[in-house]
Amino acid sequence: MKLSELCTLLQGELVGNGDIEIINLAKIQDAQEGDLTFLANPKYAKYLETTKASAILVAKSGYVDNIAHIKVDEPYLSFQKALKIVYPANNERFKGIHPTVVIGENANIAKDVNIGPFVYIGSNVLIGKNTTIYPGCIIIDDARIGTNCLLYSNVNVYNGCEIQDNVIIHSGVVIGSDGFGFAPSGRQYDKIPQVGKVVIESDVEIGANCTIDRATIGETRIKKGSKIDNLVQIAHNVEVGENTVIAAQTGISGSTKLGEHVTVAGQVGITGHIEVGDDAVLAAQSGISKNVPKGEVWFGYPAGPISRKKKVEVSLRHLPELNIKIKNLEKIIIELQEKIIKMEKGE
Amino acid sequence: MKLSELCTLLQGELVGNGDIEIINLAKIQDAQEGDLTFLANPKYAKYLETTKASAILVAKSGYVDNIAHIKVDEPYLSFQKALKIVYPANNERFKGIHPTVVIGENANIAKDVNIGPFVYIGSNVLIGKNTTIYPGCIIIDDARIGTNCLLYSNVNVYNGCEIQDNVIIHSGVVIGSDGFGFAPSGRQYDKIPQVGKVVIESDVEIGANCTIDRATIGETRIKKGSKIDNLVQIAHNVEVGENTVIAAQTGISGSTKLGEHVTVAGQVGITGHIEVGDDAVLAAQSGISKNVPKGEVWFGYPAGPISRKKKVEVSLRHLPELNIKIKNLEKIIIELQEKIIKMEKGE
Amino acid sequence: MKLSELCTLLQGELVGNGDIEIINLAKIQDAQEGDLTFLANPKYAKYLETTKASAILVAKSGYVDNIAHIKVDEPYLSFQKALKIVYPANNERFKGIHPTVVIGENANIAKDVNIGPFVYIGSNVLIGKNTTIYPGCIIIDDARIGTNCLLYSNVNVYNGCEIQDNVIIHSGVVIGSDGFGFAPSGRQYDKIPQVGKVVIESDVEIGANCTIDRATIGETRIKKGSKIDNLVQIAHNVEVGENTVIAAQTGISGSTKLGEHVTVAGQVGITGHIEVGDDAVLAAQSGISKNVPKGEVWFGYPAGPISRKKKVEVSLRHLPELNIKIKNLEKIIIELQEKIIKMEKGE
Repeated sequence: MKLSELCTLLQGELVGNGDIEIINLAKIQDAQEGDLTFLANPKYAKYLETTKASAILVAKSGYVDNIAHIKVDEPYLSFQKALKIVYPANNERFKGIHPTVVIGENANIAKDVNIGPFVYIGSNVLIGKNTTIYPGCIIIDDARIGTNCLLYSNVNVYNGCEIQDNVIIHSGVVIGSDGFGFAPSGRQYDKIPQVGKVVIESDVEIGANCTIDRATIGETRIKKGSKIDNLVQIAHNVEVGENTVIAAQTGISGSTKLGEHVTVAGQVGITGHIEVGDDAVLAAQSGISKNVPKGEVWFGYPAGPISRKKKVEVSLRHLPELNIKIKNLEKIIIELQEKIIKMEKGE
Repeated sequence: MKLSELCTLLQGELVGNGDIEIINLAKIQDAQEGDLTFLANPKYAKYLETTKASAILVAKSGYVDNIAHIKVDEPYLSFQKALKIVYPANNERFKGIHPTVVIGENANIAKDVNIGPFVYIGSNVLIGKNTTIYPGCIIIDDARIGTNCLLYSNVNVYNGCEIQDNVIIHSGVVIGSDGFGFAPSGRQYDKIPQVGKVVIESDVEIGANCTIDRATIGETRIKKGSKIDNLVQIAHNVEVGENTVIAAQTGISGSTKLGEHVTVAGQVGITGHIEVGDDAVLAAQSGISKNVPKGEVWFGYPAGPISRKKKVEVSLRHLPELNIKIKNLEKIIIELQEKIIKMEKGE
Repeated sequence: MKLSELCTLLQGELVGNGDIEIINLAKIQDAQEGDLTFLANPKYAKYLETTKASAILVAKSGYVDNIAHIKVDEPYLSFQKALKIVYPANNERFKGIHPTVVIGENANIAKDVNIGPFVYIGSNVLIGKNTTIYPGCIIIDDARIGTNCLLYSNVNVYNGCEIQDNVIIHSGVVIGSDGFGFAPSGRQYDKIPQVGKVVIESDVEIGANCTIDRATIGETRIKKGSKIDNLVQIAHNVEVGENTVIAAQTGISGSTKLGEHVTVAGQVGITGHIEVGDDAVLAAQSGISKNVPKGEVWFGYPAGPISRKKKVEVSLRHLPELNIKIKNLEKIIIELQEKIIKMEKGE
């Protein structure tokens, strides 16, 4: 794409040769010939002289003389727009329904849905318009997938699960596997049937190889706008509130409720049957064993409010020295005791 | 299904209209028209007046007047039976062998096996009667799968692995990948061939996206009746005893042995070459670095017996105050020292 | 294979019946009839009398009288060689390109590549000679795979990712899923396009169900000779240095750099935008929140140098007793105070 065309689409002001061909986008320190880059943070201005980029997005107030540039209000935002313009959308790789696709009885697939090879669509499955399903996905009976969704390769959707609109699901995700429910019977365990479902609301993104179990009865629900990183485990009957963000390898146990706009860092473990309040923040690797009030930042194992936990952490770090100090105090006290005994004896 | 039919199957006593159609089963607080619910725990009795359920299972001693009901000995047990009656079994979704299935030489597939689309069955593979294999499963050469098994979509079984009877394996599971074994060679690592296998004994259930490595030589073995949650890692040559339960995201390192009826909570890490005794319980997120005796409950990182660890945990929580207390003691001691020195000097 | 043939290939010295058929290889304590075993570590010599092995590899200085044996310089090394001879290579299970494979436009597949059933190869994909791709793998457009690679079943490679030579990738791995990048927009999150790629250099092995995200822009790179265990998460723009080993369930956050020959144990979490120096060792379950200098061994949550952390750990273990000791000191001090007050008063 020519720089001048991109400039028009970004509604910027072109300075330099508009005929330059933009092939890729790159960070200023990595850019090669043919790349468009951007300068938003002044600490990267030092790269201006050495960058090999063919063109750069800069702020209106910016001054560049060695490279063709486009002046815009917010270079980083315009760069993000440029990314969407220059790179082909992933939902345009497959067109129509590949002849290898196997579709069950009474499946209802909207007309402009794209489905890659080796996909199985079970009976009574509903797929909304403009949804794209990559190769190897397996969608079992009675599942419902909304409009504008993007399922990458080898995604698994169990029977009866519901995915609403504009949802992105990365490869290897499992939605609707049985909750981990067993009733002890002597020393053995009997399986408790898991007949609930999973509901993924609109605008959710789910990272690669996540597992989201169906409810025992009722629903496991991920609410509108939540974003889930890779390898996250969400157990049966969990509810994740709107616009909540969960980083990689976190696990949430059964029947726990996360509020709205919660931030969960990586490798956090959350016990079952508790509530995490709106806007709470859970630090990486924390082990959350009880309710977290609204807006609080928690940390640790077992976790508590971060300010207290950090204080404990600092004390802990100096514990070996505290031991030495106490040993010294003991010595002094014994000396004092001896002296006092002598004094009492009148010596 | 009519309520009266269900009543007969549950061997209960019907009170009210037996012609009601039962469509779903639900918890008392969530139930809608057409749902059957149950009342087992008295603390849910408050929902009796407001529930929208069309029918309810209650104890023989129970009194209900606003809804059709079935009186049974144990409402929760009968509800579990009803779940199995009302919902179609997952092993009945596929009938026969789908024409897209690719089967290698000398594979031996029992007559009533059901295999969905896009499944690969390698050469010399054995599959026992009444087993169901969902779409996208890949079973490599010489693997053996017993009777009445249920493999959900996209399960991977490497060559030579053995799965016995009544085993349930959820989507995305990998059985028989190479153990993580490398021999240092200068600063590089040489692969040690991994030629052992995995044996999954009868009545085991394995959650979505688990990984169970084959033994270097010999076996990795999951014994009869054990239940494994999602995203669990089991390394080469591990042995998991009978009726042991392992919650999500736990990892067990090479050659470790878990006893019978062990309970492992979520995100536990267990080091290699150790033994965890029968009936031991490992608390969530624990890091187990040495043998755990039979029947003990361990907790922490590094883990130890829980009573001791909890005591340490409580002390730790008050460590900042302990610091303050010690500073105060120091002051007092210095004052005492000064006084005694004065006294000694006769002042 | 006859023992005599194996002996020739191992360049050893045969003692006993060379016509014995070797069917499997096994550890000395597990070996059955038809098995070849080895004795390298003297502590296993006690099994010599009871082993059921049909033959054994022993050191040249070794003395065995009850079993056929091959004398070699280094029994364990020869045993590893024998493993490679006796067991068929996993890259020989599929021959040629299976007729079910779907190949996109302009894909360039070298002549002796082996591809199993239900594999999708996108447009412009490049696959080098002698590479084997197991059933169910999905390779999206513009990806490049080198020579002598082995991709097990259901591996997912997103568009534009690059895998160099002699790379082994286990089942269920996802390479090139979107980095977890979102820009807050009020209480919602907007997706930041992820247009970089993943580069897996030569001689890398990646365990089952790992997830390696593509860079936001630029590259996520795993360098030559690194070995990654199962269920490991590698975020966008991470760089893993040469010959680095990462055990199962570890997670590395965005833009972090690991040096060469680093050892990362299981379930470690590493925060984003930090550096771990060459030859560093990170103990199991550690939470690494800042740069780790070259060659250091770190441990803990939050992690620090292990010698210091172990000292803290030991102090912590005795914290309840420290509390008791301090309470006793307090009592003594109060008694001393009272005595001194009495003395001062001249009582």
